[in-house]
Amino acid sequence: MAEALQQDLTGIWRDPVQPAAVRAADLMTRMTVAEKIGQLASFWAESARPGEQVAPQPDDLGDPPPLEGMLTNGLGQLTRVFGTAPISPADGAARLRELQQQVAAGNRFGIPAIAHEECLTGLMTWTATLFPSPPAWGATFDQGLVEEMAGFIGTTMRRLGLHQGLAPVLDVVRDYRWGRTEEAIGEDPQLVGVIGAAYARGLERSGIVATLKHFAGYASSRAGRNMAPAALGAREFADIVAEPFVMALRESGARAVMPSYADVDGIPAHSDAALLTGLLRERLGFTGVVVADYYGISLLEGMHAVAGSQAEAAALALHAGVDVELPTTRCYGEPLTALVESGEVPMELLDRSVRRVLTLKAELGLLDEGVPEPEEEEVELDPPAGRDLARRIAEESVVLLANDGTLPLRAARVALTGPLADEPRAMLGCYSFPNHVGTRRPDLPIGVRIPSLAGALGAELPGLTVAAGTDVLVTDEDIAGAVAAAREADVCVLALGDRAGLFGRGTSGEGCDATTLELPGRQAELAHAVLATGTPTVVVLVTGRPYALGGIAGRAAAIVQTFFPGEEGAPAIAGVLTGRVTPSGRLPLSMPGDAGGQPGTYLQPPAGLGSQWSAVDAAPLFPFGHGLTWTTFDYSELTVSTGASTDGTITVAATVRNTGEHAATEVVQLYLSDPVASVVRPLRWLAGWARVALEPGQAARVEFAVHADRTSFTGRDLRRIVEPGEIVVGVGRSSADLPLRGSTTLEGPVRELGTDRVLTVPVEITPC
Amino acid sequence: MAEALQQDLTGIWRDPVQPAAVRAADLMTRMTVAEKIGQLASFWAESARPGEQVAPQPDDLGDPPPLEGMLTNGLGQLTRVFGTAPISPADGAARLRELQQQVAAGNRFGIPAIAHEECLTGLMTWTATLFPSPPAWGATFDQGLVEEMAGFIGTTMRRLGLHQGLAPVLDVVRDYRWGRTEEAIGEDPQLVGVIGAAYARGLERSGIVATLKHFAGYASSRAGRNMAPAALGAREFADIVAEPFVMALRESGARAVMPSYADVDGIPAHSDAALLTGLLRERLGFTGVVVADYYGISLLEGMHAVAGSQAEAAALALHAGVDVELPTTRCYGEPLTALVESGEVPMELLDRSVRRVLTLKAELGLLDEGVPEPEEEEVELDPPAGRDLARRIAEESVVLLANDGTLPLRAARVALTGPLADEPRAMLGCYSFPNHVGTRRPDLPIGVRIPSLAGALGAELPGLTVAAGTDVLVTDEDIAGAVAAAREADVCVLALGDRAGLFGRGTSGEGCDATTLELPGRQAELAHAVLATGTPTVVVLVTGRPYALGGIAGRAAAIVQTFFPGEEGAPAIAGVLTGRVTPSGRLPLSMPGDAGGQPGTYLQPPAGLGSQWSAVDAAPLFPFGHGLTWTTFDYSELTVSTGASTDGTITVAATVRNTGEHAATEVVQLYLSDPVASVVRPLRWLAGWARVALEPGQAARVEFAVHADRTSFTGRDLRRIVEPGEIVVGVGRSSADLPLRGSTTLEGPVRELGTDRVLTVPVEITPC
Repeated sequence: MAEALQQDLTGIWRDPVQPAAVRAADLMTRMTVAEKIGQLASFWAESARPGEQVAPQPDDLGDPPPLEGMLTNGLGQLTRVFGTAPISPADGAARLRELQQQVAAGNRFGIPAIAHEECLTGLMTWTATLFPSPPAWGATFDQGLVEEMAGFIGTTMRRLGLHQGLAPVLDVVRDYRWGRTEEAIGEDPQLVGVIGAAYARGLERSGIVATLKHFAGYASSRAGRNMAPAALGAREFADIVAEPFVMALRESGARAVMPSYADVDGIPAHSDAALLTGLLRERLGFTGVVVADYYGISLLEGMHAVAGSQAEAAALALHAGVDVELPTTRCYGEPLTALVESGEVPMELLDRSVRRVLTLKAELGLLDEGVPEPEEEEVELDPPAGRDLARRIAEESVVLLANDGTLPLRAARVALTGPLADEPRAMLGCYSFPNHVGTRRPDLPIGVRIPSLAGALGAELPGLTVAAGTDVLVTDEDIAGAVAAAREADVCVLALGDRAGLFGRGTSGEGCDATTLELPGRQAELAHAVLATGTPTVVVLVTGRPYALGGIAGRAAAIVQTFFPGEEGAPAIAGVLTGRVTPSGRLPLSMPGDAGGQPGTYLQPPAGLGSQWSAVDAAPLFPFGHGLTWTTFDYSELTVSTGASTDGTITVAATVRNTGEHAATEVVQLYLSDPVASVVRPLRWLAGWARVALEPGQAARVEFAVHADRTSFTGRDLRRIVEPGEIVVGVGRSSADLPLRGSTTLEGPVRELGTDRVLTVPVEITPC
Repeated sequence: MAEALQQDLTGIWRDPVQPAAVRAADLMTRMTVAEKIGQLASFWAESARPGEQVAPQPDDLGDPPPLEGMLTNGLGQLTRVFGTAPISPADGAARLRELQQQVAAGNRFGIPAIAHEECLTGLMTWTATLFPSPPAWGATFDQGLVEEMAGFIGTTMRRLGLHQGLAPVLDVVRDYRWGRTEEAIGEDPQLVGVIGAAYARGLERSGIVATLKHFAGYASSRAGRNMAPAALGAREFADIVAEPFVMALRESGARAVMPSYADVDGIPAHSDAALLTGLLRERLGFTGVVVADYYGISLLEGMHAVAGSQAEAAALALHAGVDVELPTTRCYGEPLTALVESGEVPMELLDRSVRRVLTLKAELGLLDEGVPEPEEEEVELDPPAGRDLARRIAEESVVLLANDGTLPLRAARVALTGPLADEPRAMLGCYSFPNHVGTRRPDLPIGVRIPSLAGALGAELPGLTVAAGTDVLVTDEDIAGAVAAAREADVCVLALGDRAGLFGRGTSGEGCDATTLELPGRQAELAHAVLATGTPTVVVLVTGRPYALGGIAGRAAAIVQTFFPGEEGAPAIAGVLTGRVTPSGRLPLSMPGDAGGQPGTYLQPPAGLGSQWSAVDAAPLFPFGHGLTWTTFDYSELTVSTGASTDGTITVAATVRNTGEHAATEVVQLYLSDPVASVVRPLRWLAGWARVALEPGQAARVEFAVHADRTSFTGRDLRRIVEPGEIVVGVGRSSADLPLRGSTTLEGPVRELGTDRVLTVPVEITPC
């Protein structure tokens, strides 16, 4: 563009006092079609770097247009400027500023781009705090802590000049084989919704746009294979899959939504107007921006074959309600421009999306005078506060599955072995920076201090013997070494699990789908060899999904489960092993009894959970919600209020007492059941929970206020209803251990609900 | 009932000249509520016998009412009088006559019952011909032969005084782990529909009521677990699951339908008015009788919990459109009577079902004067004609998967080993009489001569060495014996597979669901031990489902797959091994590459079949439609007509030539693809096929007339449509081996179709 650009920087749109929508509307009147489409476009700053490609790209798309050619028309988004290249915060912020100046200078209105990054387990860039993965958040049952974490992440991002984070993942896990199980919070929609909303709220409160994804049904992909079709009926979709989105949209103020890659019953989300406009906008009232998942629009042609060209894909997506193409514009560039100019795509459709993007930009200050500057270039990305938060979440997320008394460790001679014994990266999920850079450029530094389990446990047990394995797939030498170490020890700690990675580079992570829930490689064989020594063995699992443990569970002295617990994960595990940390995590995903029974989570009707009619035993090895600690808790004095109407509230109260010798936290869980309903209902579902810290002998009264809306479901005619009749209540330690059971009856007529239904169950904890 | 019964045997209803509907209407005006309800009731004659219970019964139902108490009100159905007890045909017929006399004498109108039996692989009673299982029918791709078989079965049943058979199964296989895979014809709806309709037609033409089951979605039960919920969207339901029912209803005249046990997206079929009345009656025009699956009404309370009592279950089922309760009345007895008498269930609902039952009884002659007598009590149930038919189907169903030239056997020293080597029952599926009686009363005789593979192969190879294993689970001794036998032989034949049984008594069959597709027990280990001897090994699989063969496939000299091929199965396999029989079977189910990738069949879009986005390789080991023989076939001269409209016909023709030295039959297969559609479509689907017998060097021209309706699908707004645009055509040997590919373009507008759409693809074969 040799021609000099005439910038027009006046007008109502430039006035920060005007409402965002007014500014957006005014600006649109001044824009050409090409300039409007520029605001729906994006550019992957990192993609220009050879050898840095993270994900496979769809075949035969050719190169994206270069940045220079795009700038005249403006740019909607800058993709992952910090990204996964090992650049310092200062270099990243400087590069972002430089790009923003280039973008702003390049278009008539001087508008910079929205800069987004991945941030699921912390800002995904070099030297940033590496938080635990989402199933670990689920295991804490502690939404407050997760909100605090997201606030930390958001504040860091804002300081660096970023605007949007592509998190949280609100997919409800349906099949543990899915590689992205490690990105999801759990298998219960209430747990996913409450914790996911907390994350989104934390990000938004810090000024960063949260992106709820993947809307919706992605986790139901057939056989857990990434991007495979999801077979879902309308009822399962509404009651299970969409529910966390309903909750997070209402309770977090999230301003962005990202559609799922998968098709549900033949309709890809990126082309689904009933989903992205009918449900999301018209019924749920969402007013923010829908951003495509990376290549999601192109794949309407390249994978789903519902479009015959990139132009058709653009038209479909825009009509459905996808406002911005990511990560780099292909369909929403020249192909869409031509369609609008020829009248094939109506201007109103284009304006609808542009209005949303410009309104968001106005809210973010991006229509104001001046190019945005990072608040602080020398941001310390892993400060003590972040590290402390990572530690607290990691500690609360450790789940003690079984313990014969061997834990806390008291033995003199402890051996640590197994493939994950001395591998710092083992603590990190697929969406953590070091795994990305590590799998592509193992020569590059991680950038953050991550103790391995050997390092962390050795710091607490100076006499620790370490015989670390070499790889999660396990070699003959690994087995021999582990057996030898176990033989010489009083207690053996065996660290097993996953290696996170992308698209086949790991055993867990995006594209790393499994076909069996046996532990990867020869780890079960290794475990049986170690157990055969007779040395009491504590199995530590650091995984991205739950695994079937075969015969290990009955023979191990103790089992500790963690889900990629982050940079402070190893000290958290070590603390539990030594007794310094009192475990309080609970399973957000059932541990299956059989390696081949998927799909299947706890949220099923009796016929789905196994019956006299099938030889398959579908019972889990450890149920959803399960977790032990150093003490025991007694449950008593259940009261369930009576006389509530189908529009009323049931009060459920119970007393929980620490009956052991050790202060600890119980996660008191409330489940509901509907003994007779007009449609098939899950045997029970989680309605509420409370983390209750109790000293030895101390008791507390826990009271849940359960609105009848929490018994609602999608009825036969697809309306959401509350039915009168008996509701059975269970309070206790897990979905399968409910010492207190009672019931009450909802009275009155069948009541129809809208999307304004009551979503949460408030809880009060009173010491007694 | 000491009181003498006054019978009223006059009226229009008694006049055989009057139309059936008129007779039914007249009779209903004379009936009390209790008498009407009696016509919806049933009695399991066999269930009174201690120790003969075949299937588990729902818990806590208590004993059914005794026959005597039911007779005053009449009886709709007698359940399985021949059943699975080893009684002679004469005894069975006599017992049926006696029961019918009792029923007729017991009610005011002298109406006998409809007598039904299971008949999936032949009348399921002692000494009756044991035909191959449904996947074997699928493997023949020979609907004419299947119709002949059903005609034989029906004729036998009619002679014995029976009226209705509970077959065929039209479930489209979606997950091979499902134990009832062996009862289904295959994984393609066109194949299931064409062959299933042929079976139903054969039964109906012989005068026996065919029962299409299980309507619908049963095979989609989660994780292949019997009775578990089916997650299905409306599009998959219509385009795949319901399609064979549409076809069989139209093309067979079947007069009965049985609902599925499972719920689809929360709605159990036995309570689904939209399914049983909306779709089945109003849209598909069905006028026959809907009979409950055994206990299916009770399970609305006991399993699905959509009813709070047996009375509520009755009301739900009757309203939905279930006309008759099977196998023995519980809900449709006193509970339903009370509901109708109190007005809670309207009389019109009751009348609707009674009218259907009485109309069917009129058609069957059961309203005529006199109690029906068996035509012939001394029926020979396994005559040479039946045996010959069983042989022909068995021979056509053997699939030669791989062959390095070892087959046909020419070696001097052949050893036969493996768990199925000398077990006659290995040839029989779960719905064959000897498996029922054998698993309950192993002391009782089978009643039909079934050669084992050792017997059949020994008859052709007098020098055969047999080292038979003891059990499908395989013992150490089995392995040692097999290895020793293999070492002494020039060629080893290793017979592996399933043991069919009910509810955990087998490795395949109703309730015998699997969690992995590894061969059951230690059979893979056995196979690898035998292969390790270095002796060329022919693996013979006799199974109820496809299995993943692990590393066996690459190492075996040849592989022969059969699906429970019936009483003549062993001679058929032996014939293929020796070359006496030329193989012509083709896979009706893909053989998976991975033991853990379910659900998943060939009928999927690209994203479901594996992609760069998932580390899981979803490619089958042997694809749907695959099968070899003693010769090779060349494909040439594809012609595809052009210019067809969206309401027109595409003519596809190809020349197939026998390019080898041996006369054989090729199954020429036609597949279609839709490169761009408005919804996600399978990569390709089977549209037609032709069995073409060719002498060496001989060629034939095969011409398919593909109506545009065969490209139709359920569009975005759930209407069935044909879209204009390119259709890609493939002709060849299997779904993955299509040497001829072409395309054509459908012209004109999008066309909406009803249920009257063209379902079949006529084919013409001209020698050339």
